[in-house]
Amino acid sequence: MSNSPILIPYERLLNFTIAIFHGMGCSEQDALTAATTLLSADLRGIDSHGVARLSGYVRLQEAGRANPRPKLRIIHETPSTAVVDGDSGLGLVVAPFAMQVAIDKAAQAGTGWVSVQHSNHFGIAGCHALKAVEKDMIGIAMTNASALVAPTFSLERMLGTNPICVAVPAGEEPPFVADLATTTAANGKLEILQRKGEAAPLGWIQDKEGRPSTDPHELKKGGALLPLGGDRDHGSHKGYALGAVVDIFSAVLSGANYGPWVPPFPAYVPMPTGMPGKGIGHFFGAMRIDAFRPAGEFKQHMDNWIRRFRSATPVPGQQRVLIPGDPEREMETQRRTSGIPLLPVVVNDLNGLAEKFSVTPLSLRSQNRP
Amino acid sequence: MSNSPILIPYERLLNFTIAIFHGMGCSEQDALTAATTLLSADLRGIDSHGVARLSGYVRLQEAGRANPRPKLRIIHETPSTAVVDGDSGLGLVVAPFAMQVAIDKAAQAGTGWVSVQHSNHFGIAGCHALKAVEKDMIGIAMTNASALVAPTFSLERMLGTNPICVAVPAGEEPPFVADLATTTAANGKLEILQRKGEAAPLGWIQDKEGRPSTDPHELKKGGALLPLGGDRDHGSHKGYALGAVVDIFSAVLSGANYGPWVPPFPAYVPMPTGMPGKGIGHFFGAMRIDAFRPAGEFKQHMDNWIRRFRSATPVPGQQRVLIPGDPEREMETQRRTSGIPLLPVVVNDLNGLAEKFSVTPLSLRSQNRP
Repeated sequence: MSNSPILIPYERLLNFTIAIFHGMGCSEQDALTAATTLLSADLRGIDSHGVARLSGYVRLQEAGRANPRPKLRIIHETPSTAVVDGDSGLGLVVAPFAMQVAIDKAAQAGTGWVSVQHSNHFGIAGCHALKAVEKDMIGIAMTNASALVAPTFSLERMLGTNPICVAVPAGEEPPFVADLATTTAANGKLEILQRKGEAAPLGWIQDKEGRPSTDPHELKKGGALLPLGGDRDHGSHKGYALGAVVDIFSAVLSGANYGPWVPPFPAYVPMPTGMPGKGIGHFFGAMRIDAFRPAGEFKQHMDNWIRRFRSATPVPGQQRVLIPGDPEREMETQRRTSGIPLLPVVVNDLNGLAEKFSVTPLSLRSQNRP
Repeated sequence: MSNSPILIPYERLLNFTIAIFHGMGCSEQDALTAATTLLSADLRGIDSHGVARLSGYVRLQEAGRANPRPKLRIIHETPSTAVVDGDSGLGLVVAPFAMQVAIDKAAQAGTGWVSVQHSNHFGIAGCHALKAVEKDMIGIAMTNASALVAPTFSLERMLGTNPICVAVPAGEEPPFVADLATTTAANGKLEILQRKGEAAPLGWIQDKEGRPSTDPHELKKGGALLPLGGDRDHGSHKGYALGAVVDIFSAVLSGANYGPWVPPFPAYVPMPTGMPGKGIGHFFGAMRIDAFRPAGEFKQHMDNWIRRFRSATPVPGQQRVLIPGDPEREMETQRRTSGIPLLPVVVNDLNGLAEKFSVTPLSLRSQNRP
């Protein structure tokens, strides 16, 4: 079988994914929400967090670690804050609920800030933050995750890749979307190198003795990802501090697990012992633009900001200076037309789920041409 | 004259600095606020942002760019937000006012978020964020600054070192304080290398052609600082995105200048042309802990977080894993006892101000021993 990607039209993949979530026991509404959230990663080119993880979510549910029928509740609130109990639901469903609470709070109080306990992995942060942008708000989303990252000077893995997204509306220009793991490189980039059999740059990983390494398989051998910065001389203590802030906002504020106690995504990995909280944690924010200045005025200045940065003189050999969010938006435009490319191994894995839940399998032949 | 630092007792330096600000025309209250804010940098070991800059502030005032008697005003607000007009005041005075507004908003609405226009440089971010910690709140402070940093792929300097501070209260443990410039290395570190005649690591700076450089004098020759990450392979697009978020929150939300239009600190550098806003911008946040969960419960978990991270196994050759804020707090404890070390060139510069404002000069002999 060829190893080249199979193109699946977005609508086809969405309906397939909805059917699987429905098969898992999710309500129709939740299945739609979960599928849309999950596939936003595939659309935006963050393939490591998209439909390739669907069978991982199924295994979490089968292991009793993800509840397909959660009762989502606000357990504490003030005019501008809330804590949401995700009742062990899929983060793909819990996060959109919590982001909506943040948006509703912002509509009343100017801003809304929601910390979430007892959740699971929520897909990509950008998907949630962009929900606020549709309402003329700045959106913020972050989550903790199981420990793969060694803080500066640490041999032990203590933090997840703990991403932060900040999405800002503009006027005629598309939104500004900063969406970043607080590590030098996300795990998905290591997977690409593993498939290609290539070495990683120094500064991405350390081996199990804490030495810098270029082996992209190092994580399976007891090594660790490194915080943004890579080493102390290049500011890894800053990446560590940022990842720690994400952990504290997501989990210490909400009552979720933090640091080395965050539950792992693979259902076969044993849970940490002595867990101090419930599930994994997220944090969401929404700030109404007109809580600061008239939205039209702000958007004119954002357009001016974006155009000035986009027109900055590039260094020799580079075409242009990018605005955060440009690559993902361009990918989404392309993939909505040409389809989502999936490796045959992923399609086969998904078709195993199709059989389990009596869903029509995906074709192994591309249905669109780029 | 010896080139070794002269130790000045903190109280002596504080009274001296108050007298200079008073001489500049500040009210007694503002002179105290400005001096305390400025010297918090010296106490915490961030010497590049402390009293060594005092004559720079005086020159800003003499050039008519800093107003010693500002009328600080809230020009827009909601229950959880405000925009403050700094009336061209010293950031050292404007920032504490704006942070207090954020704290007052948080007391009522759970959180408070304040964007500031028409200000000047505010010292170190940590000083402001820590004000919230005293009230059992998480404190956030950030500011933009004049453009010294080239975004990923840019030849042009477009952003300042744009620091972010997040300060979090704990229980028995001291607070967690992440305080970081969004560049690989702050300008102060380059100054240290310049004095020592040493090269900078690759990843800190580029030359005026956009090539990686190790020359710490590169900024004066048309080069630029690099965003946290250093280069694209090591995530410089993430440092760029973070610096951009600071710029947008501080200036596009408030109506200050942003990007390459932020006014420079040295009064002799001409102002940029076509400025789109007023002065420089800051952004402050305060989140009441008990807007999320009971403060005592949160602090117990923060203590647990801090102790677990502090006890992480270090890599061979390192003594311990640090908690963000540890080095600065240890420095402050030491300097409150032993005094603030100032280079003779700095003391001479300060004594020039003493003469100008008829203030008793500082001694050129250390008055404390470490």
